[in-house]
Amino acid sequence: MSDGARLTDPPRKKDERNGTTAQRRGPLTSSTGQGTPERPESGGSRLDPHHDRYAERARSMTASEIRALFAVASRPEVVSLAGGMPYLRALPLEEISALVARLLAEQGAEALQYSSGQGDPQLREQICTVMSLVGIAAHPDEVVVTTGSQQALDLVTRIFVDPGDVVLVEAPSYVGALGTFRSFQAEVRHVAMDGQGLVPEALREALAQLRGEGRQAKFLYTVPSFHNPAGVTAPAARRAETLAICREAGLLVLEDDPYGLLGFDGAPPRAIRADDDEGVVYLGSFSKTFAPGLRVGWALAPHAVRDKLVLASEATQLCPSAYSQLTVSAYLRTQPWQEQVKVYREVYRERRDAILAALTDLMPPGSTWTRPEGGFYVWLTLPEGIDAARMLPLAVSERVAYVPGSAFYAGPVLPDEARRSMRLSYCYPEPDRIREGVRRLAGVVERELELRATFGGRNETSAGTAGPAADTA
Amino acid sequence: MSDGARLTDPPRKKDERNGTTAQRRGPLTSSTGQGTPERPESGGSRLDPHHDRYAERARSMTASEIRALFAVASRPEVVSLAGGMPYLRALPLEEISALVARLLAEQGAEALQYSSGQGDPQLREQICTVMSLVGIAAHPDEVVVTTGSQQALDLVTRIFVDPGDVVLVEAPSYVGALGTFRSFQAEVRHVAMDGQGLVPEALREALAQLRGEGRQAKFLYTVPSFHNPAGVTAPAARRAETLAICREAGLLVLEDDPYGLLGFDGAPPRAIRADDDEGVVYLGSFSKTFAPGLRVGWALAPHAVRDKLVLASEATQLCPSAYSQLTVSAYLRTQPWQEQVKVYREVYRERRDAILAALTDLMPPGSTWTRPEGGFYVWLTLPEGIDAARMLPLAVSERVAYVPGSAFYAGPVLPDEARRSMRLSYCYPEPDRIREGVRRLAGVVERELELRATFGGRNETSAGTAGPAADTA
Repeated sequence: MSDGARLTDPPRKKDERNGTTAQRRGPLTSSTGQGTPERPESGGSRLDPHHDRYAERARSMTASEIRALFAVASRPEVVSLAGGMPYLRALPLEEISALVARLLAEQGAEALQYSSGQGDPQLREQICTVMSLVGIAAHPDEVVVTTGSQQALDLVTRIFVDPGDVVLVEAPSYVGALGTFRSFQAEVRHVAMDGQGLVPEALREALAQLRGEGRQAKFLYTVPSFHNPAGVTAPAARRAETLAICREAGLLVLEDDPYGLLGFDGAPPRAIRADDDEGVVYLGSFSKTFAPGLRVGWALAPHAVRDKLVLASEATQLCPSAYSQLTVSAYLRTQPWQEQVKVYREVYRERRDAILAALTDLMPPGSTWTRPEGGFYVWLTLPEGIDAARMLPLAVSERVAYVPGSAFYAGPVLPDEARRSMRLSYCYPEPDRIREGVRRLAGVVERELELRATFGGRNETSAGTAGPAADTA
Repeated sequence: MSDGARLTDPPRKKDERNGTTAQRRGPLTSSTGQGTPERPESGGSRLDPHHDRYAERARSMTASEIRALFAVASRPEVVSLAGGMPYLRALPLEEISALVARLLAEQGAEALQYSSGQGDPQLREQICTVMSLVGIAAHPDEVVVTTGSQQALDLVTRIFVDPGDVVLVEAPSYVGALGTFRSFQAEVRHVAMDGQGLVPEALREALAQLRGEGRQAKFLYTVPSFHNPAGVTAPAARRAETLAICREAGLLVLEDDPYGLLGFDGAPPRAIRADDDEGVVYLGSFSKTFAPGLRVGWALAPHAVRDKLVLASEATQLCPSAYSQLTVSAYLRTQPWQEQVKVYREVYRERRDAILAALTDLMPPGSTWTRPEGGFYVWLTLPEGIDAARMLPLAVSERVAYVPGSAFYAGPVLPDEARRSMRLSYCYPEPDRIREGVRRLAGVVERELELRATFGGRNETSAGTAGPAADTA
């Protein structure tokens, strides 16, 4: 497939603030086959008459070259282990069609009208019921409905982060959160994870270092359940320890929990927010338990913070979509939505099993990976010397796609382990396609290892030019 | 109605940046009767443990006391001339119900999935067709679909405005735009309008003053057609002169055109963007031509700006709702949408006629008002000495609501004419209700004038305490 080579053709832009190429999460959700058009890279300063007028924050908004690659990766012949798209064919589309038809016929003038900035009152009650499943006792008045939980992330960052403010995030971390933090010019500091999530000692060290600098972080951003991208889950004791550290330091916790109900074994993990209603802002989403195209998520926040979030949301969009909100509300009210979550769980469990079996059977020695107990993702670390970002164009030309580990770090310092890592999503392809994708990936890795054994050092042949990794490091 | 008095009970907050009470547009769209809960005022610093952690921009986000009033104004016994809600009962809800049912049954897995950050390609083509009606020849690749045009305003401001940057806006201006500019800490400078829109000489003066200060504005924000709130429309010659001034000064024009197709006479006004494709960012919306609950709007921008807008949108929300976008797209494809716009026009024309007749018949001498040729709003200026914001609680207790003129100015300096002005929306109530609302309003004004004639000077009796106007001045 000759398109592999041209993926690195567009000139790469340096992030003007920290010397790294922007790593953004756009591509991770754009491989829908809906025809995301390829665009010329942004930032062509000499051709842009408005170049001198942009805000400082816009200067760090540059398109990743990974974006161009994903336009290719969305082709049907490519097995994409890259995107985090839910498997919507598991949904009862006929029933949803019927309930929306009723909604519009009976409440159309309300569903299509402006609504309140905080969100539909009945939906906020239902959201409290959803959160009770992860141990949270909340009042609807503390809930702000948002345009997906990405917007909740944006609003929280908007009200807390001034340029240069420090936020603490896991290493690796959700690429969409990194993009939001970057867009508000935050200084991101990573805190190490292990197989049980965030490492408490690393958090203590990060806080001590900040104290030593006379600084304070604005918040800790954490995904304790079925982590994106790491595929790990913090056990209860680890959560308690994290919360205790944050309380002692007076550090706000931003708990992002899109996958909490998608565990494969036992009850959903108890949210950190369940044990602290003043020091934690909790973000939830219907994107994975129902459907992402509705763009309905929420933030649960203490009253004063909630007020600011509503004001920020109104300044951003007036109000969230009544159409989407009332659709979700009617779905929760009329459909066996918890049974549907079980269906999703079984679909994803089967795919998790498929990818773990394929990795065990096919990956060359020296590869390691996490064993997710829920959610969408496996974090794969390749043998030393492999550069996952540099290898990506070759992988796409061999019809398999993934997201290189480097995308999940803010940079500029990238641990060697991150450079040879990648996120594999098992949520979307059928199990046999997953196995085929891992087979192709293993083949690419073996070829890289062979080239490395033959020529030593870095393999420059895979893309013809230096790949994205050289910049994201 | 005893609730009138308590509307001024909550303590008023001063905007910490410029000494004015925050004027926000939230209330204008929240009077839907959906039960927007009244909330305690935000910013209670002594009770908020997070108070010291907010970003600088969040300090200027405070709730207007007008907000509390609108919870009362949404009661059915109140004639609300305040909100800008389209009259959705004019929509063919059965047909829309059927088309959405088909959409979900046939394309559900696409309509409910993540999609591209720039927006659905087919919808972007359709948007170009819509824009051709105001004279714009555009390519779908230049269009970014947004969560309502409010989000487009937010994204444009996000990419262009650093704290303290100057933006030029009409006087008065759309309250939602003022809220967005404030949330990005812009310095808003008003430029006078007359019955033909923005006054070119005032624009020249504002630019000369900036040059004298060694500064440049980031853009001019203008609503040339059927202005919100002023109800005036710039004729072609005025638009051409405005554009020529901006071109000469190298000033970007941000043209907001939600009402462009809702003119009552003749062809829609030609957009400023139709005559300049590099120096104008054009914002459009389906909120008034179809329905606002879908939250679908767009920005049309030169390529480099478009790139930044997409990146900013992705950082904010990943992607606009596929569900809403495909609904709008199917509506445009399968329904006689231009006929529907004509239906809307006739509805609003009849209401415009009703409000102008009622104003002529009922308002006391010394009142003046604009005569809108399209859109939703009349700008009413009361006799000297009346303070429209101060009078609002009394008006609501007399079961009529409006938005005081002061809400449409950034402050801190408020022209006397603004203080005695208000925006009247004729879009939502039936004509006989409009007349009844104007009758009530005229009664309140007459009472104020009598009290003023009897006691002289300011009337302190209407609300028991100083009303909002004292702070918005």
